[in-house]
Parts: sequence; structure tokens; C-alpha cells
Amino acid sequence: MFKAPLRHILNQSSNEEHSMKLERESNISLKRQIYQTLKDQILCGDLPAGEPLPSTRVMAAELFVSRNTICDAYDMLITEGYVANHQGSPTRVATGLDVQSHQPHNESHIPSHKKKYCYNFRTGLPDLDLFPIYLWQQIMRRTTENLHLEDLDYSGPEGMPVLRREIAAWLFRGRGIRVLPENIFITAGATQALHLIPTLLQCRGKEIAVEDPCNRGLYETLLDAGVQIHPIPVDKDGLMPEYLSGVHVPAIYLTPSHQFPLGGILPAYRRAELIRYARSEGAYLIEDDYDSEFRFEGDPVSPLYSMDPDRVIYVGTFSKVLFPAIRIGYVILPELLHDTWCDLRLHTDVQNSPFEQAALAELLQTRKFDRHIRSMRKVYGERRLALLEALKVTFGDTWQSWGDAAGLHLAIEFENLVFDEKFISFCREKGLRVTSVEYHSICKGAHGNKLLLGYGHLSPQRIREGIEFLHCCLEMYQKI
Amino acid sequence: MFKAPLRHILNQSSNEEHSMKLERESNISLKRQIYQTLKDQILCGDLPAGEPLPSTRVMAAELFVSRNTICDAYDMLITEGYVANHQGSPTRVATGLDVQSHQPHNESHIPSHKKKYCYNFRTGLPDLDLFPIYLWQQIMRRTTENLHLEDLDYSGPEGMPVLRREIAAWLFRGRGIRVLPENIFITAGATQALHLIPTLLQCRGKEIAVEDPCNRGLYETLLDAGVQIHPIPVDKDGLMPEYLSGVHVPAIYLTPSHQFPLGGILPAYRRAELIRYARSEGAYLIEDDYDSEFRFEGDPVSPLYSMDPDRVIYVGTFSKVLFPAIRIGYVILPELLHDTWCDLRLHTDVQNSPFEQAALAELLQTRKFDRHIRSMRKVYGERRLALLEALKVTFGDTWQSWGDAAGLHLAIEFENLVFDEKFISFCREKGLRVTSVEYHSICKGAHGNKLLLGYGHLSPQRIREGIEFLHCCLEMYQKI
Repeated sequence: MFKAPLRHILNQSSNEEHSMKLERESNISLKRQIYQTLKDQILCGDLPAGEPLPSTRVMAAELFVSRNTICDAYDMLITEGYVANHQGSPTRVATGLDVQSHQPHNESHIPSHKKKYCYNFRTGLPDLDLFPIYLWQQIMRRTTENLHLEDLDYSGPEGMPVLRREIAAWLFRGRGIRVLPENIFITAGATQALHLIPTLLQCRGKEIAVEDPCNRGLYETLLDAGVQIHPIPVDKDGLMPEYLSGVHVPAIYLTPSHQFPLGGILPAYRRAELIRYARSEGAYLIEDDYDSEFRFEGDPVSPLYSMDPDRVIYVGTFSKVLFPAIRIGYVILPELLHDTWCDLRLHTDVQNSPFEQAALAELLQTRKFDRHIRSMRKVYGERRLALLEALKVTFGDTWQSWGDAAGLHLAIEFENLVFDEKFISFCREKGLRVTSVEYHSICKGAHGNKLLLGYGHLSPQRIREGIEFLHCCLEMYQKI
Repeated sequence: MFKAPLRHILNQSSNEEHSMKLERESNISLKRQIYQTLKDQILCGDLPAGEPLPSTRVMAAELFVSRNTICDAYDMLITEGYVANHQGSPTRVATGLDVQSHQPHNESHIPSHKKKYCYNFRTGLPDLDLFPIYLWQQIMRRTTENLHLEDLDYSGPEGMPVLRREIAAWLFRGRGIRVLPENIFITAGATQALHLIPTLLQCRGKEIAVEDPCNRGLYETLLDAGVQIHPIPVDKDGLMPEYLSGVHVPAIYLTPSHQFPLGGILPAYRRAELIRYARSEGAYLIEDDYDSEFRFEGDPVSPLYSMDPDRVIYVGTFSKVLFPAIRIGYVILPELLHDTWCDLRLHTDVQNSPFEQAALAELLQTRKFDRHIRSMRKVYGERRLALLEALKVTFGDTWQSWGDAAGLHLAIEFENLVFDEKFISFCREKGLRVTSVEYHSICKGAHGNKLLLGYGHLSPQRIREGIEFLHCCLEMYQKI
């Protein structure tokens, strides 16, 4: 009575994949191999509904395994409903299972899709070679060892209290911002803050105002979050509030300390205008302070936040002052939004993990953070000068720079050039990564003659070579 | 000429907050204190538009600070546009700045809003006391020290290759799932996966099908992500596919290995029906496998994923097998969705941080992960038995348990009781945390007589005491 299915199961199938070949050296237990094979045969229809399985005794003898192994495999099939047994009758294939099972491919390769450039003027990258990795490893080790078991439990979406306190202290001594720790919420990087804010402010499906040009990644983050974008033009001083006249939006995104990408510092009268707008419309100003730690001529610019903590949501990051892979940022929120924020964070990714938070708190608390920023400010300032010098040597007077002496990138404008996508691609093929301001523009056409150069991660020597190479690329491109 | 504003600035203001009191011991530099005070006075209107500031020489003499300090402070005000200077004329307050500046409160307190319970039967918590924290600290230390500088750079939204490989290997040896590492994407916990999937599948604004009851947090995560919920009833065996007839949804969320909260294992014929539904509708099945590592009678249940990797999105987590604060989960995606996923993750929070990823990869690679799961499975199995025994001793035959012998919680049904919100609150006030199944129900009314008890984190002794206390609470409640 069991002969046919038994032969079928054991090896006579034309379909090699489904024959019962036990691999005794495998990581997978024999019972699971048997279970898997039978399941595959059932799903592909080789073992049709109602078909009896061989008795466990017969099956064990044929496969040279213990009867317990077969019983275990059958139990798994019974539990999951692939077969059914009724007292006294043999175990039979259940009905309603005719699904062609899918066989995944077997080769495995994880491609690396990072293109390598000879000269990479990507914006927003700190110089990792100058990051004190040994110090960080030491601190991570110490703080991880000092963590308690309860730190491994859910500890709340607000972030670790010690880190919130240390960030408040840093903002006070480094930026003159007076903010209470309980208004600071730790995020998984500034990007997460900007990802959640539209939902926080119930802006989904609505229009919010955004600087134009603005960071393309940020623009896409906002679109993904479900808002529509009302672009507000930017000039040398940043966002132009006159374009808000007649516009009614619940939120305005801006970078007042160092406009990205054009580099302007928003003047006080425009700040005041924005605050008045926010108050009269009940709107929020989303202040993205992505790199104001690095200002080379004078102190960091005072944030818009200080002018009205009830109408400004301040977003800060550590990925540019420490290293990109650190997934810690923070957002300063008015009290009215605290509860909604916590709910939202709980439903997004619950909280940050404790290890990086504890390490960062210690870095801040010991002031090693301040020291690192001071030394990097010096380095980046020199690199900025090297870049300006190299541009002057190579391009003479045909260009001018935009914006304040700050940050990790420079926007430059050429008199008689246009940097279109074709040129940018041409450069990239040659091994030079530069970005046009136009790439970051929402309404295209206004910034075609401006180029964006990230210099923070490049040595002065690489910067000089890169600018020369840019010159070569321009000449080559004009000839084709 | 400068007399009036100078006196005004220096101390004669009726508004104490805006008078110039320099704190020489402060963390804040003198120049910033001067800048801040002047700015506050400008913003609140004490120094009106056009008002000239004292000369730097006069100001320096009055305040007993160096003239450079005053110049720096004035420069900051000029940079930010609060004052303006024109050659030959004094520095004057700029126009258009009349905004009442906001003064934050000064007390700081971060409240702890964790309520402590005597007996906390919260679901989904592992026993942290049994987590090998020293081992984890050791591994974190070793892997952090072995990280290279390039690991601190942006390394891609997919997750660390070594971790993706180790998870694939674990799924193969522990669950019999054949999956290529490149189909596995590391997430910031399972919650993040479930937060992003609606956007990934372009379900925002549309209806998706969800088991009813289902985890309340998950339900809110999906709502926050912008979808509407079509509830599908659940019986002892899990989701009931007959309720899908006539329903057209792009995605179905389910927990086939161990239905949350009722505990059923989805039988094979229902799985096949769901696969057929997904294929004919072009829909995706979102398989949330939140605790199937802990099955006490027999092997882990085989995932729905194996039946059709093109139509099933598998979501896995480590927060229940290791510790809640570990913010690593993963999602297995069909190739068609890889690029969209990566874009989405980049715009959400960019990537996971490297430290936990590297440590988890090592834990998996050395099989210490497997050992931990085996030993915890034994512990949780014993606790489940202790809970069942305690219920029998305390409540006799008036109840029955639901679901498979698996996971970290148990659903029980009482013959003649109803667990409404009032009763649950009553228990919580008395120090007992229990949850009703009704709390997790979408359509209310079907599960009023069922209670949910999380037992993984409680010792058998605490479980017994807790159940006795539950009995007391019931008696007390019936008397009021």
C-alpha cells in the first residue's frame, strides 16, 4: 500500500530537487531535511492531497535514520497542517495545498555599489582620518561596560537622560542656546527628525514651504513623508520672506545659520519676519542646523530657535562633527508637541540603542567633544582657504564664492559657464565628483552657473589637484 | 550722544532680565554674554531700531573688558543683522526686529514616567536578568576595536554585509529558511520595517488587511504610516482567509507562526489560500515573525516566506531573543522592492550604526546566539508550565488556554468573566499589570473574556504570586 509514494519520495522523482537525499554532514538536522523534502513535494503537487505517507517504521528503515527522527518530521508537518492523521489510518497529505513552491537561487553576492572617485568633492563629509577613533573606542568600551541591565530594556523614546542633559549643556556653552534637557529628544540622526516632523505637525497631504535650492536628500525625505513642497527662493542672505506673502503653510523648512547649499546667514530682520509669520499663521519654523559648529571667521551664528522656542523646531546632528555612521541627532520641541512626538517615535523605531548614546554623553561630558570640534574647525578653515586659493590660481577672476565662511562645502558661481547634468556626468566618468547647485534646486533654471564643492574630507593637496582636474574636465568637455 | 542707551544697556533697565550683568565665572564667554544681552534688548524693543550702540571703547571701559571682546560681540550682531554699521557713523540697531523674545523657564527635571508594578504581566519582554551582559560587553568591545575608519562612514542602507550573511546562515540552520544575504535588509528593529512597508508598497491612503486582534502598537504603527485597516477575524488557528473573499487589498499583515495575541499556528491550507490570494491580487503578505524561536513542543514553525519569497515580506527581530534596547531587526524583500527600500531607508534614518551590527554578527557567527536561544527556550518553557499550573491551582477549571505552546505570552479565556477597561485599570492601580485581548482588538466585543499574560521575564515564583494576586483583584473588584 505504501510502495508507490515511498519510491516516489525516496528517489524516483524526475525532479531532482525534490528527491530525498539526506545530507548527514549538514548544519540542518535530519528531521528538518525530511520535513522540508516532504513539504516541497506536497506543495509542488508531487504528493497530492489524500496521499498516504509511508509509516514511520518503513520510512526510518529506508532512510537509515531512527524512527524518532521520522516521527519528529511528521509531527512538524502535522503541526503546520501539511498532513493529517486520524487514529488508525495512515498519515495523509492535507487538501488545499496546491501551490508551486518557489526555489531561490543559490549563488550569493552582495554587490558593492560605491563608485570610487579620484577626486570626490561630495558635500557634507567630515574627514574621518582625523577622527580620534581610538578615543571613541575607549569611550565606547568604558560606557558599554558601565551600562546596567536595565539600560538594555525599553528606556523610552525620548533618549537617555544623561545624553539629553549633556546636549543641553553643550548647546549652552557652545552656542549660547538656553534649552531644558526635557525639550531635547534624541533621534536616529537629523534625517529621522525631518522624516517625522511632517507627521508630527499633521502636514501630510498639505503644502509646506522649503528653501529653494535645498538639500536634495532632505527634499526627498519630505516628499516620502507625504507632504507637498512650496519652494521659497533663496538669495545670498538665505530664504526670502517676501515670497511668503499670501502663502499659508503650517511649516517652513530652513537652514538659517548656513543656508544649504548657497551658504548665506539669514539676517535678523528676515528672522523676525519669519517669527511674525509663524505666530500669525500658527506655523512652525523647522530650523535645520546641520553644520554651524564650523564657522571660521567668528562665533557660531545664534539660532532662530532662541527667538521663539514655541514656534521653532530645532534639528541638530552629530554626523558631521563626529562621523557619518553615528546615528544620533536631536530635535528640540515645544512642550505642546512632546507627547505626540513620543507616540510617533514609538511607532517608528521605538528608541535609539543605548551604546552610542552613552558614549556620546561621555564624549560631551569630558569636553573631548569640544576639543575635537575646535581642532576640526581649524583644519576645515585651512582647507577652505586652500580651496579658495586653488580656485584663484586655476580660474583667475572668472568666478566668485557664495555664502559665509563656514561649513564643509563652498558654492561658487562662474561668469560664463553652465553646469548641466551632462557635464556633471562627464566629470564623474572621468573620476571627478562635483555637484551642481541646480541638482539641489526645486524650480530648475536659476542656478545653472553654480557649482558645489565639499572640501572637509580632502587634504589641501587633494583639493589643489582636484581643482586642476576640474579645469581639465572643463577643457575636455568644451572640446567634445 | 551715547549716554542714554549706555545707561540703559548697563543696568538701568526696569527689566532685570535684560540688564548687562556679566558673569565672569560662567561657561559662556564674555563676548557671548554681551552679544546675548544686546540681542535680547533689541528683540524686546528696549533698544529700538536706529538706536546707536556705544562705541566699543566706551563700552569696554564701562564693562571692564577688553575692547576686542566688545568688537567680537558687535561683529556677531553685525553678522546676524541685529545691528548695522556704515563707515563713519556709529553702529545702529537694524530695523524690522520687533519680536518679543521668549525666555525659557530655568528649572530642569526629566520626569520618569515608568509606572512600577508589583506584578507585571506585560507581553513580549524577555528576561533581562538571564541575558549574558558580560558576554555582550566583551563582544561589543572586541568588535568595536576591530572596526575600521571606513566603517564610520556612510556604509549603505542595506546593513553590514557580514551581518546579512550571518542572519542568512542563522535562518538556514535555525529555521530551515533558504534566503540569500542580499535579500536581507537590516532595520532599526522590526517596528521600523513595519513603519516603512506601507510606503514601500505604496499603500498610503489605501486599505490593507490586518489580523483582528493584532498587536495594538503595530496597529498604531500602520495607522501612523498612513494606511487604513481592514480587519480580518482570527480564530484558534489564526487569520481566517474566508473573510478575504471579495476584499481587494494590496497587502495583508499576519503572524502565521504564533498569532499575536491568540497564539494559533496558521495551518498549511490557509497558508496556501493566502499565497493564492496574493498571487491573484498581486498583493504582498507581511509575515511578522516576532517570537517563533521560542516554541516549546517541537521545532520552530516553518515560515510562510518559504512558500513564495516573491509575495511574502518577512520581518524578523532580535529584541525578544536578546534585549529590547537592541535596535536591530531585518526584513527579507523580493528583489523587485530592493531599490525602493534603499531609497526609503536613506530618507528615513539613512542606516543602522555599525557597533551593534558588528557585535550581533559576531554573536551569530560564534553560535553563542544559538546557545542563548536554546537555554532561554528551556527557561521560558518552564515558566509557561508554571503559569498554566498556577492558573489551574487558583482558578480550577473555569478557564482554558488559547494557542500553541510558544512565545512569551499566554492568552486565556474564562467562562464567566469579562475583562473590561475598568477592571484592567483597577488591577493596575492595585499594582498588577495584565492586558485584555480586547485591548488588541480592532472590532471590539469579540474577546471580552480573554486575558493576556506575558510570562517570559517573570520567575515561576513571581508568576504564582501574580496569579494569586490576580485572583484577589478579581474578588475585590466583584465586591465593589
